Amino acid sequence: MFIYGAYGGPEIIKGLVRDIRPVWALEEIGAPYEQIWLNTSEGEQRTDAYRTINPFGKVPAMVDGDVTLFESGAICSYIANKYGQFAPSIGSKEYFEVQQWAWAASDTVMPPLFDTFIWTNFRGDHPASEAVLETTREAVTARLDVMEKVLGDREFLVGNEITIADIMMGSVLRNGLNPNAYEAYPNIQRYGHTLWDRPAFKRAYEVNLAGPATP
Amino acid sequence: MFIYGAYGGPEIIKGLVRDIRPVWALEEIGAPYEQIWLNTSEGEQRTDAYRTINPFGKVPAMVDGDVTLFESGAICSYIANKYGQFAPSIGSKEYFEVQQWAWAASDTVMPPLFDTFIWTNFRGDHPASEAVLETTREAVTARLDVMEKVLGDREFLVGNEITIADIMMGSVLRNGLNPNAYEAYPNIQRYGHTLWDRPAFKRAYEVNLAGPATP
Repeated sequence: MFIYGAYGGPEIIKGLVRDIRPVWALEEIGAPYEQIWLNTSEGEQRTDAYRTINPFGKVPAMVDGDVTLFESGAICSYIANKYGQFAPSIGSKEYFEVQQWAWAASDTVMPPLFDTFIWTNFRGDHPASEAVLETTREAVTARLDVMEKVLGDREFLVGNEITIADIMMGSVLRNGLNPNAYEAYPNIQRYGHTLWDRPAFKRAYEVNLAGPATP
Repeated sequence: MFIYGAYGGPEIIKGLVRDIRPVWALEEIGAPYEQIWLNTSEGEQRTDAYRTINPFGKVPAMVDGDVTLFESGAICSYIANKYGQFAPSIGSKEYFEVQQWAWAASDTVMPPLFDTFIWTNFRGDHPASEAVLETTREAVTARLDVMEKVLGDREFLVGNEITIADIMMGSVLRNGLNPNAYEAYPNIQRYGHTLWDRPAFKRAYEVNLAGPATP
């Protein structure tokens, strides 16, 4: 299985790019994979060749035999199904609960966290940034208030083992990462750190940071 | 099966709210369902009772026997699987291609279309709106340029029949709907109108607009 990942981007996004999600999933399973690295500072993700893999010119993408996929949520679902672990059996009630939380991570929790991250770190000098950040932070608070209650003392979002719902949510929550981001949210802080302390995440993070120099 | 939908919102969002997605899917299949309506002008989507169904206080949500789900992507996947039609068989290569396009609709194509819609129609007087719209419109163009090429003369995103990928993408593309939105994109225009002309979409749209007065 080949996973397309990005390197060469700004320092601040290292370890935050979505190609970490399938790699984290594969590391949890202990499944073999090979990473193909695209140098974003040279626009390698926007070549015609790569656009035959992912027409949007984004990472991650995956090639496994005759299956080519993009979108991290779809790739993580494929990986979980291929190895028959790490997610409830396909089609079960719990399977759809995992899907629901994977979608919620990406569709509902991520947008305001991502926008806040982008407008803080890449558009800080933009004349609109202060006004935009007021609206995005309000949305972040609304989403995190819900997640704090939902998590309670749960270790994982569905059942008693890590699933792709946690991979997606754990990756999304890193977009809000700064020393004080989750100070007011002890459950989110605990949940996040439990995930990020896992050896599989640490390995994926190391791979993500090292890029083509991966040991 | 019960689908939670919203009514009582501003005129301009009628027919655009995400509860139209599962209803459209159910109408395509001809499956029975009952809609439970929440009056958003009275905040009925934010009551403690509804938050036990969807903690984020958003629509749609679904209750089917002992299965409760939120997030339109997960609900549509559940519906397709329950009725064993309208999507490739679960776990197949095509199944994941459909998932990929459903995610792409929601994760990649929707954000700039949605932001443009919101900042145009609800934050037009906001001091930041012009500057924000410059960045969102740029992203919209990038996404639509890709979709125009991907669609070519395809009728559907995967295979020769409508799938939940088209439900998700067809619904997302409506967020950009204004008389000139797709003038420069003949393939998107054709694809969209083919979907929106389907009797099942028309029925879902009618239901969505009528709210609790549904005939």
